[in-house]
Amino acid sequence: MNRIEKQIAFIMEIDKLKDVYRRSYLFSQSRNENSAEHCWHVSMMALILSEHANLNVNLSRVVEMLLVHDIVEIDAGDTFCYDEGGNLDKNKREQEAANRIFSILPEDQSDRLMKLWREYENADTPEAKFAIALDRLMPLLHNLGTSGKSWRENGITKNQVIERNEKIGNGSYALWEYAKQNILKAVENGILKDDAESGSSHCPEGADFF
Amino acid sequence: MNRIEKQIAFIMEIDKLKDVYRRSYLFSQSRNENSAEHCWHVSMMALILSEHANLNVNLSRVVEMLLVHDIVEIDAGDTFCYDEGGNLDKNKREQEAANRIFSILPEDQSDRLMKLWREYENADTPEAKFAIALDRLMPLLHNLGTSGKSWRENGITKNQVIERNEKIGNGSYALWEYAKQNILKAVENGILKDDAESGSSHCPEGADFF
Repeated sequence: MNRIEKQIAFIMEIDKLKDVYRRSYLFSQSRNENSAEHCWHVSMMALILSEHANLNVNLSRVVEMLLVHDIVEIDAGDTFCYDEGGNLDKNKREQEAANRIFSILPEDQSDRLMKLWREYENADTPEAKFAIALDRLMPLLHNLGTSGKSWRENGITKNQVIERNEKIGNGSYALWEYAKQNILKAVENGILKDDAESGSSHCPEGADFF
Repeated sequence: MNRIEKQIAFIMEIDKLKDVYRRSYLFSQSRNENSAEHCWHVSMMALILSEHANLNVNLSRVVEMLLVHDIVEIDAGDTFCYDEGGNLDKNKREQEAANRIFSILPEDQSDRLMKLWREYENADTPEAKFAIALDRLMPLLHNLGTSGKSWRENGITKNQVIERNEKIGNGSYALWEYAKQNILKAVENGILKDDAESGSSHCPEGADFF
């Protein structure tokens, strides 16, 4: 295949991300969200919310990272945080997925996307920290907008939501402050269980929550 | 509402784009594509194909335009090119949609998104021309990848596909060359009707084809 054919083959391959479903529900509650439309939505969040990043960020790199961050789910699936077996080999499965899918591209572009994806996964740069903050804030908004549908279905409690989401603060204090206030409001309004009412379980690092 | 509340209200509002369906089918043929995941997919195309733009383009503006370009469909719907009634007032409906939806944002951001969307619609800048080229190429790829499913269902012929897609060349000669070769191949392979076999109808300017 020539260069353009490899590029088009990659573009056709990643269509499969539209068939990967997440635990989140659309605000309309008509169905679960898929990972492709989720990537669009968090990229839009970056455009709108970048002024709230803790450090100055290169917005276009944040957007590129968010466009690319879930492509590995085409092979590796969207791993639920309570799937302990699934989480044990999550990193390995995702690395294999990245190797296969990105290598459809010409080598220079394959390297570029791999670097973007690794930057996101390593969570070291201001851009990655901010991108991750948006990725965590999104399902919280979906729960707030659906009276906690996914929280209730999965028996999630306040402390779990706080534990999972406090990393928003690594990317944006302002957004974490907003999130915290709304988590407490959700408990007050009875759409999120307080831990006094229910035991909590640990959510493994790096897992997609809901 | 304070600034952050307006921004979050906008982000929650645009979730509705996931419930707007297009004529295109996923390559898996499991269902029609929605406009939100389409916006992700064309933004990914920009990342991969920007080297083929006729003129040097500011990639991050191309991506921002593509992320935003279909948001008006939340109110205005995805107008099919043969819906002559729908196309008569398409511009008016889309402008009203832009006014309502973008104005949920703080004013500076509302203005910024309106400007991006108008730039795309006016098709004057190299960035807009390239973004439009990608938006037209995408459904062509979906047809090529599904044995012309949407072409066949809507009785589309070769000349219509060429007429609709030749504007790809305004943004990228290389991509139009690629597209043309594949349109001819599709006719050879019997997945796209030649016009000798069927009458053709005119596709109004600016309509979303399929």
